[in-house]
Amino acid sequence: MEKILVDLNADVGESFGVYSLGNEEGLLPYLTSVNIACGLHAGDPLVMERTIKKAIGLKLSIGAHPGYPDLQGFGRRRFSLSPKEVKCFLIYQVGALMGFLKVAKERLSHVKPHGALYNEACQNPEIARAIAEAVQEIDPELFLLARSGSEMVKQAKLVGTKVVEEAFADRNYGEDGDLLPRDHPEALIRNPEEAAKRALSMAKEKRVKTVSGMEIPLNFRSLCIHGDNPLAPAIARSIREIFAANEIEVSPFSI
Amino acid sequence: MEKILVDLNADVGESFGVYSLGNEEGLLPYLTSVNIACGLHAGDPLVMERTIKKAIGLKLSIGAHPGYPDLQGFGRRRFSLSPKEVKCFLIYQVGALMGFLKVAKERLSHVKPHGALYNEACQNPEIARAIAEAVQEIDPELFLLARSGSEMVKQAKLVGTKVVEEAFADRNYGEDGDLLPRDHPEALIRNPEEAAKRALSMAKEKRVKTVSGMEIPLNFRSLCIHGDNPLAPAIARSIREIFAANEIEVSPFSI
Amino acid sequence: MEKILVDLNADVGESFGVYSLGNEEGLLPYLTSVNIACGLHAGDPLVMERTIKKAIGLKLSIGAHPGYPDLQGFGRRRFSLSPKEVKCFLIYQVGALMGFLKVAKERLSHVKPHGALYNEACQNPEIARAIAEAVQEIDPELFLLARSGSEMVKQAKLVGTKVVEEAFADRNYGEDGDLLPRDHPEALIRNPEEAAKRALSMAKEKRVKTVSGMEIPLNFRSLCIHGDNPLAPAIARSIREIFAANEIEVSPFSI
Amino acid sequence: MEKILVDLNADVGESFGVYSLGNEEGLLPYLTSVNIACGLHAGDPLVMERTIKKAIGLKLSIGAHPGYPDLQGFGRRRFSLSPKEVKCFLIYQVGALMGFLKVAKERLSHVKPHGALYNEACQNPEIARAIAEAVQEIDPELFLLARSGSEMVKQAKLVGTKVVEEAFADRNYGEDGDLLPRDHPEALIRNPEEAAKRALSMAKEKRVKTVSGMEIPLNFRSLCIHGDNPLAPAIARSIREIFAANEIEVSPFSI
Repeated sequence: MEKILVDLNADVGESFGVYSLGNEEGLLPYLTSVNIACGLHAGDPLVMERTIKKAIGLKLSIGAHPGYPDLQGFGRRRFSLSPKEVKCFLIYQVGALMGFLKVAKERLSHVKPHGALYNEACQNPEIARAIAEAVQEIDPELFLLARSGSEMVKQAKLVGTKVVEEAFADRNYGEDGDLLPRDHPEALIRNPEEAAKRALSMAKEKRVKTVSGMEIPLNFRSLCIHGDNPLAPAIARSIREIFAANEIEVSPFSI
Repeated sequence: MEKILVDLNADVGESFGVYSLGNEEGLLPYLTSVNIACGLHAGDPLVMERTIKKAIGLKLSIGAHPGYPDLQGFGRRRFSLSPKEVKCFLIYQVGALMGFLKVAKERLSHVKPHGALYNEACQNPEIARAIAEAVQEIDPELFLLARSGSEMVKQAKLVGTKVVEEAFADRNYGEDGDLLPRDHPEALIRNPEEAAKRALSMAKEKRVKTVSGMEIPLNFRSLCIHGDNPLAPAIARSIREIFAANEIEVSPFSI
Repeated sequence: MEKILVDLNADVGESFGVYSLGNEEGLLPYLTSVNIACGLHAGDPLVMERTIKKAIGLKLSIGAHPGYPDLQGFGRRRFSLSPKEVKCFLIYQVGALMGFLKVAKERLSHVKPHGALYNEACQNPEIARAIAEAVQEIDPELFLLARSGSEMVKQAKLVGTKVVEEAFADRNYGEDGDLLPRDHPEALIRNPEEAAKRALSMAKEKRVKTVSGMEIPLNFRSLCIHGDNPLAPAIARSIREIFAANEIEVSPFSI
Repeated sequence: MEKILVDLNADVGESFGVYSLGNEEGLLPYLTSVNIACGLHAGDPLVMERTIKKAIGLKLSIGAHPGYPDLQGFGRRRFSLSPKEVKCFLIYQVGALMGFLKVAKERLSHVKPHGALYNEACQNPEIARAIAEAVQEIDPELFLLARSGSEMVKQAKLVGTKVVEEAFADRNYGEDGDLLPRDHPEALIRNPEEAAKRALSMAKEKRVKTVSGMEIPLNFRSLCIHGDNPLAPAIARSIREIFAANEIEVSPFSI
């Protein structure tokens, strides 16, 4: 039987100026990959520089986490940029992060869009395609990290962009395979043990139970843990423990 | 006798959103190098993308033109960032531009700081050093384009960063070798023929007459033409003509 | 027979920092009301201060022109702010403009939302209501300037906010009474005489011919001239002339 | 003997978007006045709206806290705006806050500049004058809250602007009467009891001991407590207690 490999990723580097966000010190040691904010929805050049240093110190795979130019809304509000605009804003942000990686003599492993841009790209073929193209044009070795089964995955395959599918252990799914929106009362799974059990069953069965109780198939190589949740370190630790006890190997998708 | 080579550079890509700045269509054909704004004092991802395309079409050497994060002040106001902040903001902006160059399969030739950051770096050894270090750490092949005889040139040499000295044909110099500030009544030279004569004498004599009439030595490989001056194309053409008539070769410093 | 009164308004103060927009010197003398940008989609504190001075010098009625916080997109991109967010961003911007008016000892006459916020509010009852409430809560004497027949007009009446309906002489209408979107080939009417004839017929007949040739009713007290159109001064002059020749009085709605 | 009255003020409303700053819930009940950030160095329209509501609920005097347009640097970096720019940026921010106060049917009591703008205005007569003029032109009933003995106090008196002097119980003074800069090892007084004793002696003696041990005179009607210090609530409580035990009355300067 083939060994099951799961990457653990989180969005990090989302502090800004004097403002701190998330418990990164607690969370980073449990991860294998990070997605670093690039200054438009969160993050700034100083935060990027020090987040990269921490990630390198822990030998994590480093991805870019570009979002809409909406700092006040943390990139979570729908914002109708054209595909061309999305492409240019993505190249800008990924390039900026690569600047710090060049200085650190490290390479970028992947790109994962943030928040409302991610959600839009999961459903809108033109936006998904713009993102897949941008990632490939920047560097054909880069992975696009995208929600399992989403339009982003489809477009990446059409364009020929390397793609990794991810699932969410700390969020509930609707029947269409989308995450429940953040303002839904059952959107977030806050209990670390419940999240861990969920992660285990998702990894073993390749299925997830939606909020209505239906089971839907779910193919993934990476699990995302939301770093802005104060329980994120506890959830990550629980997942590590349950995976270790069940011979699921935590390992980055990009080596 | 050795042939005199002079590069002609200008700051471009300084439009933003719906706002246009400068007569780039008119100016670009006379240049050999451009310094493209990177989105913090001017420019945005769409402007960067299309400016790079134009520059490639004309086979110009492409440089990054990072500035202070001060869009409303066009990066012209003094802003006391620490050397560390300057370094990170510079890496961010240069990296962002390099993102577009990777997509276009072109290379970056140089970095030239903008406005108040440039002026600060001409005089402040710590800021100059931060810039020289950042340029070298991003890529040791990059040139720093800096005012002739300035602290930036000194620090670049100390750090081992490749540096190109530039002079200004459309601006008057003070006796300390600094440009007169923009609000000085004689700061700008507006007559294209006067600017061209000045450029010729500067190139031949390696000296410039300051506003008070004194002559000071001036070593340079590149001449800057201010792109936000509506007469910039006329000045550039006059310089081209007078150089051609005097066997001074207009050629990029970076090949 | 009752005299027909028509106000002529335009969006102004949309320059930013070093960037200029529109030919305000040419347009302002033909207007009776102005809508001044408030710094989030365009304008900045210095632009606001000097635009108010010009408007006072010409005895124009002064309105606030708040938009989405999207300077790079000039507030023209759809941006899904909640009604609460719209309300707060509107109060912020209108308040900022009122600050300059207090200093100038002038009063604010009206509020007109900008671009994508205006379009959203013409159709979305919740956003329209948020705007109508904000305007009334700031000052019950303020007018809301809104597209004739739009949801904004309806909600203003429900809330009890004073409202003035406006029409557009330089834009084509669809059959639903909406303006054709800017990227529609027939969106803009560029010929000043055509715009003036259109304005006359709209004012006299209280009807407008849509792009498909159908006639729809149109009730309005103000006509908007788009200030970012270089022909705006010519259009405004033509309208002034045709109105004078046909005994339609150009007069502000707010006195 | 005349009763000693001391106002307790703090800078609040300095959160932004998803980012929280300071322990306002803990601190507000001990204060008599607040200075609310206005969106350029910190704060946003939603934060302003809810901070005003809290302040009104506790019957605190409400002031505006305008800063440099430098969100990433939290308005703490020197930024050379001209007096005209300072004036316009101040009117903009104070006006924006007054918009929310109009909606809440409350009045603004005072204006206190933030961070690097405050420090600049304590020493630079032109900047101090620009601020004093702006405050008076907005509303001659407004107080300017300024460091005891500073250039701001002098200029306010020259201009005729109402001014209230403040001192700092949680910061050390240099011999020139300035606060030690934040990066000085002894800049901050972190022990609540020490701060309280200091506040008592300052209030009674009208003097303060500088970092070098010298005593300098200090006239003040308000004490500032830095809200971004996690110990701020403890310091405020200690001051309240020591003042109560020594018959110093905590009371707002503006009624």
